[in-house]
Amino acid sequence: MALSQEQFSSQLLQNAVEEFSSLPGVGRRSALRFALHLLKLPQENVERLGRAIVDFRSKVRYCSRCNMISDTDTCPICSSPRRNRELICVVESIRDVMSIENTAIYNGLYHVLGGIISPMDGIGPSDLPIESLLERVKSEGVKEVILALSTSMEGETTAFYLYRKLETLGVKITGIARGVGFGDDLEYTDQLTLGRSIENRQPFKPN
Amino acid sequence: MALSQEQFSSQLLQNAVEEFSSLPGVGRRSALRFALHLLKLPQENVERLGRAIVDFRSKVRYCSRCNMISDTDTCPICSSPRRNRELICVVESIRDVMSIENTAIYNGLYHVLGGIISPMDGIGPSDLPIESLLERVKSEGVKEVILALSTSMEGETTAFYLYRKLETLGVKITGIARGVGFGDDLEYTDQLTLGRSIENRQPFKPN
Repeated sequence: MALSQEQFSSQLLQNAVEEFSSLPGVGRRSALRFALHLLKLPQENVERLGRAIVDFRSKVRYCSRCNMISDTDTCPICSSPRRNRELICVVESIRDVMSIENTAIYNGLYHVLGGIISPMDGIGPSDLPIESLLERVKSEGVKEVILALSTSMEGETTAFYLYRKLETLGVKITGIARGVGFGDDLEYTDQLTLGRSIENRQPFKPN
Repeated sequence: MALSQEQFSSQLLQNAVEEFSSLPGVGRRSALRFALHLLKLPQENVERLGRAIVDFRSKVRYCSRCNMISDTDTCPICSSPRRNRELICVVESIRDVMSIENTAIYNGLYHVLGGIISPMDGIGPSDLPIESLLERVKSEGVKEVILALSTSMEGETTAFYLYRKLETLGVKITGIARGVGFGDDLEYTDQLTLGRSIENRQPFKPN
């Protein structure tokens, strides 16, 4: 018998490779590399890896206010006394919160939708935590809501829906600035972005 | 508080990311992607992943004859009646066996060293399963041993050591052909390989 790429000499190895392959962006080759790497680790390290994965999935919680991932009922951002509670930034995902936090520029709170309105995927407004956002704006003295959703059709639909709901509450509604990225060449910037960056030009501030 | 790239809002997430980062070639970014992907999976799938990893590491066995990874005492290759038992190909790693098997050209047996002689890393001949190779050659009617080790200094040292040990047993000893790869341009082939491919030229066979 010859062992093909898909048939290993060990079912245990085959299982490990198949499971690793289910991770995003991991092909059979990387999965095999991961599996064989496990053989070089002490068994306790491999057990720690397995436990961390299962524990994370089974014990994960979401903040009861902003829906950010959290180990506690209220996430560290929502419970921090140093954050500006008059400002809520609405984002699609947990990763978006992390990206904005990494800039260390933003000091307000968040509201994670966990998705966007997408009739094609059967996701309507009632499937997203929009009521809880409106509730927060109404009852927590929020002055401004920043919409930081994607510029896809679904993102814009969601932003528009939120805009219509929020404007009745008399809160200031803003969107993040779009334009040519710092360090980007005009030559390689898409036409829509470049066009908008000219329309939305700002007074020049010399450094 | 601002959450830096290294501090997540959840210790469980942080643990999962750190453990994923320990896999070869996986940076923090990919590790985070893996972890967040777990949230989209049913819990039972994540448990299956965790179990496959731990089971593989804790239950893995090696073939008592060739040291290939195996679920049984003797691996499927060593126990197959269709393999040519007069031929043993000596390789450094489990992955080398898989690569050669993928060619579907080779029909003999293997002997996996699991490493090479490397005085710098404190690995001497006695740390490798060389005695068991000599034993197999002596007692199992082996006619030819193919040395398929790397061309690094350590690989060549190991090959030379094996050659000296094997020649006393009167077995035929061969090495895999080195030369310009199929589809490779001469222009981009390293000088050593190109030089050897001219020295070791073969009678031309028109297709």
